[in-house]
Amino acid sequence: MELQALKELKTKVAEVIDIVHAIAVLEWDQQTYMPPRGGEARAEQIATLSKIAHEKFTSSEVGKLIAELEPYFQNQDPESDDAALFRKVKREYEKDTKLSPDLVARISRTTALARDKWVEARKESNFSIFAPYLTQIVDLMIEKAESLGYEESIYDALVDDFEPGLKTSRIRAIFEELRKGLVPIVQAIRESGVEIRRDFLLRNYDPEKQYQFTLKILEKMGYDFQRGRQDKTAHPFTTAFSVNDVRVTNRFKDTLITSSIFSALHEGGHALYDLGMPEKFDRTILMTGASYGVHESQSRTWENIVGRSLHFWTYWFPRLKEFFPEQLQDVTLEEFYRAINYVEPSPIRVEADEVTYNLHTLLRFELEVGLMERKIKVQDLPQLWNARMKEYIGYEPKNDAEGVLQDVHWSDGLFGYFPSYTIGNILSVQFFKKALEDISDLYEQFARGEYSALREWMRTHIHVHGGKYYPEELIQLVVGEPMNPQPFLNYLREKYSGIYGKI
Amino acid sequence: MELQALKELKTKVAEVIDIVHAIAVLEWDQQTYMPPRGGEARAEQIATLSKIAHEKFTSSEVGKLIAELEPYFQNQDPESDDAALFRKVKREYEKDTKLSPDLVARISRTTALARDKWVEARKESNFSIFAPYLTQIVDLMIEKAESLGYEESIYDALVDDFEPGLKTSRIRAIFEELRKGLVPIVQAIRESGVEIRRDFLLRNYDPEKQYQFTLKILEKMGYDFQRGRQDKTAHPFTTAFSVNDVRVTNRFKDTLITSSIFSALHEGGHALYDLGMPEKFDRTILMTGASYGVHESQSRTWENIVGRSLHFWTYWFPRLKEFFPEQLQDVTLEEFYRAINYVEPSPIRVEADEVTYNLHTLLRFELEVGLMERKIKVQDLPQLWNARMKEYIGYEPKNDAEGVLQDVHWSDGLFGYFPSYTIGNILSVQFFKKALEDISDLYEQFARGEYSALREWMRTHIHVHGGKYYPEELIQLVVGEPMNPQPFLNYLREKYSGIYGKI
Repeated sequence: MELQALKELKTKVAEVIDIVHAIAVLEWDQQTYMPPRGGEARAEQIATLSKIAHEKFTSSEVGKLIAELEPYFQNQDPESDDAALFRKVKREYEKDTKLSPDLVARISRTTALARDKWVEARKESNFSIFAPYLTQIVDLMIEKAESLGYEESIYDALVDDFEPGLKTSRIRAIFEELRKGLVPIVQAIRESGVEIRRDFLLRNYDPEKQYQFTLKILEKMGYDFQRGRQDKTAHPFTTAFSVNDVRVTNRFKDTLITSSIFSALHEGGHALYDLGMPEKFDRTILMTGASYGVHESQSRTWENIVGRSLHFWTYWFPRLKEFFPEQLQDVTLEEFYRAINYVEPSPIRVEADEVTYNLHTLLRFELEVGLMERKIKVQDLPQLWNARMKEYIGYEPKNDAEGVLQDVHWSDGLFGYFPSYTIGNILSVQFFKKALEDISDLYEQFARGEYSALREWMRTHIHVHGGKYYPEELIQLVVGEPMNPQPFLNYLREKYSGIYGKI
Repeated sequence: MELQALKELKTKVAEVIDIVHAIAVLEWDQQTYMPPRGGEARAEQIATLSKIAHEKFTSSEVGKLIAELEPYFQNQDPESDDAALFRKVKREYEKDTKLSPDLVARISRTTALARDKWVEARKESNFSIFAPYLTQIVDLMIEKAESLGYEESIYDALVDDFEPGLKTSRIRAIFEELRKGLVPIVQAIRESGVEIRRDFLLRNYDPEKQYQFTLKILEKMGYDFQRGRQDKTAHPFTTAFSVNDVRVTNRFKDTLITSSIFSALHEGGHALYDLGMPEKFDRTILMTGASYGVHESQSRTWENIVGRSLHFWTYWFPRLKEFFPEQLQDVTLEEFYRAINYVEPSPIRVEADEVTYNLHTLLRFELEVGLMERKIKVQDLPQLWNARMKEYIGYEPKNDAEGVLQDVHWSDGLFGYFPSYTIGNILSVQFFKKALEDISDLYEQFARGEYSALREWMRTHIHVHGGKYYPEELIQLVVGEPMNPQPFLNYLREKYSGIYGKI
C-alpha cells in the first residue's frame, strides 16, 4: 500500500517532469525545424515553462510532503525505488530552495547576454569582448556556490550539479594520476616517428549518403526507431521526452566522413542509456542518468571503445566502401583504422583524440577552480590557457578563438561541468573491462556487427538503475571498486602500442 | 501610462498563452515527427500543461484583476486594443469559471474513450459501437450548455465557443435562406446533362513532386517561409505558436493531384490570417481570429474563390503540366478547370464540391440542435441522417461509415462547430466582393500569378484586427452590412452557369 503523502509527492513531481519534458520538446524543435523567425516567441515559452516548473518543484506543498515522509523513509530499505526517489527529490528540493529567485533570474539574464557576446568574441577572436561578462558570471557562480554551501572546496558546490556527491579533492587526485600517465604516452607517440595517412578522410562524401549510413549504424547498435529518430542540427545532441521517445541529432558535412559516424555512435550511446531505463521510471525523477559523467561513459563506450576499434571496422569498412566506392578505393582497412586513431597535439577539445582529450579538460578544471577560489583573474585567462596548452599538450594556440574562447560552457554558466567528460572516459573503460570479464568474445562479436550482448550488459548493469544511485555508488555496484583511471591508461597504452609501436 | 492592474493581467494572460502555444508545439510534433511509441508520454505532457493553463487562467488573482479593472474600462474607448483585450479576457474568464473542474474532467475522460470507439465504429461501419459513448457526450454537452447558460436556445451556449455572440435563431435563418437558394442550383446542375471529364485527376502523380509544387504555390501566395514551414501529416492543418511561427501541413497521395494543391491553398489561407496579425498581439488573447467562421473564410477564399477559378489556373496549369507532362499531356486548361469544379451528390462533407457542401453542414446543424433540445435520440441518428442526405443532396449513404460516422467532431465533444464551416463560405464571398469593389482587376492579377493586392487587402481589412471584434462586428466593419448568404448564392449561380449552362 502506498502512503498518501508519497502518492501526492509523486504526482506533483510527475507534473514537473512533464513540464521539463515539454521544454525539451520545444528546444528540440528550435534546433531542428523551427522557422528562422520563431526564436523570440520560443524563448518566452521556454522561460514561462521553466518558471512554472521551478515554482511547482520548490513549492511549500512539496516541502511539507518531504518533511512528512522523512521519518517514514528512515525505516525503509534504502535500495528500494521509493527510497531512492525520495532521496533524490529531497536533495534537489533542498538545493533548489537554497537559490533565491533573484539569483536565478540574474544568472539567467546575464548568461543570455553573455552567450551572444561569447559568439561575437569568438568570431572576432577577441577575449576582451567577452571578459566583462565572464567576470560577472564568475561572481554569480561564486554567489551560487556560497548559497548552496560546501564543506571543503567552493568548487564542490558546482560540481555537485553534474556529479552528485563528488568532491573537488577526489577529482584533483584523479586528474593528477591521469596526467602522470598521459604525458609519457603523448611523448612516446610524438617520438615514435610513425607516419599515418589521412588524406582520404577529407574527400567529398555526399551528406545524404552519410545520413543513410549513420541510420544503418544506429539500427545495428539497437537504437529503437519506434522510440526515437535521427534529425539534422548544427550540433549533435540527444534528448529524451520519455523512455519511449529518445531522439538523437547529427550533422552531415560535405567532407570529413568520420564526423557524422562518430557523432551517431556517441549520441546513440547516450540514447541507449535513456531507452534502457525501465518504464516504471517514466514521469519520475529517476528517469535520468546517475550523473553527467556516467551518461558520457555510455556515449564514449560506443564512440571510442567500440567505434574506434579495429574489430568494429572489420565489419563496417567494407560496407562504408560500398557507400563510397570512389572515395575509398585506394584505402585499406588498416589505413582507415590508423587514420581514425591518429594522435596529435591540437587546440580544440571536441576534435581531440582519445589520448590528449583529458589534458584539455584538466586545463579547464584547474582554471575553473582557480577562478572560483579567486586565485585566478579573468583577465589572465588567455595567457594561462596558452601556457598550459603548451605544457600539457605541446600546442600553443594561435589566437583566442582556438584557445580560451572555444567552449560555450562558461557563457552558459556551466561551471563544474568539464570534469564529467573525463569521468565519462575513465568509466567507459572500467565498465567495458567488467563487461569483457563477463562476455569474453565481445570484440569478436563487433567484427560480426553484433552488439546485443554488450548493449544488454549495459542495460542490465547500468541503465536499469536510472538515477537511483550516486555515481560513486553505481561504480562500486557495477565493477566492485571505486572510480580509477588506471584501466583507462592501460587501455590507451595497449591500443596505441598497436598503432605507434611499444609505448 | 499603463495601469498596474492591467499590466499584471496582461502578464498573467501572456503566460497562459505561452503554455497554450507550447501545447500546440507538442501537438504539431505528435502529428509530424514523433516516433510511434511516444504517444503515451505526450498525452500526459499535454494533459498537465492544459490543466496548468486552465488553473492559471481561472485563478482568483485573474478574477480580482478583472473586477478591479471593470470600472476603468467603462470610460475607455471600446475600440482600443486594451478595451478589446479586456472584453475578451473577461468573456473567456466568465465562461471558463462557469464550468466546474469536475465537468471539464468528465468531458475530457469521456471524449478520450469516445474517440477510440468512433475510430473502431467507423472502421466497422457500425454506429451501435459508438452510440453509447455519443449518448454520454450528448448528456455532457447539455450539462455544459446549462452551466454556461443561454437566453434563447440551449445550442446558443455551444455555438458561442466558435462564433462569439452568434445566436441559433440567426444561424437557422441563414441556413434556411441558403437551402432555398441551393436546392434549385443543385437541381439545375443535375438536369443540365453536361458531362465533365475527370479521368486524369486520378492518374499517378509523384508525391515528392506534388510537395514541390505546393511549395511554389505557397510561396506565390506570400506565405512567409521565414515564419513558417510545410510538413507532412495524415490530415492537413494549420497551427500558430506566435505571429512569427505559423506552420501548415499537408498530405501527398500517389493519385489525386488536386487534394494536396487545394489543401495547400486552404491551409495557406488560414496561415496568412495568423501571419497577418500585428506583432503587438503576440502573447495576448487577441492573437486569434474573430471566430472559427471568419478563419474559415480566409482558407475558403484561397481554396475556392481563388484556387478553383479559371484565372488562377491560366497561370498555374502550364506550370503544373511542366511538373507532370505525361499525366497531363492530353488535358486542356478548360478541361482541368471543369474537372476541379465538378458538382455531384456525394456522401462525404470534406470531399464535397462548393455547391453541395453547405447542405452537409445544414444536416449536421439540424441534428445537433435536435439532440441538444432532446427532440432527437442518438439511436435514431443513422436513419435521420440518411433520410436528410437523400432529401437535401439526393444521395443515400450506403452505410454508417459514409453516413453518420464520417466526422470526428462529435467524438471530440465539438458540438456547435459545423455552422462555422458554412459561415466561412458565406463570408469568403462577402469579403471578396468588397475586395473586388476596391481592386477591380483582381482576377486579371490571378491570371498573372499575382496575389499581393488581395493578400494586402485581407491583411489590412481583416487580419490586423486579430480577435478584437465579434464576428458580426467585424463583418459590419469590413463590408458595411451584416452576414448575408445572397452574395455566396450569386457567386455560385454565376460561376456554375459558366460550366453547366444557365442556372
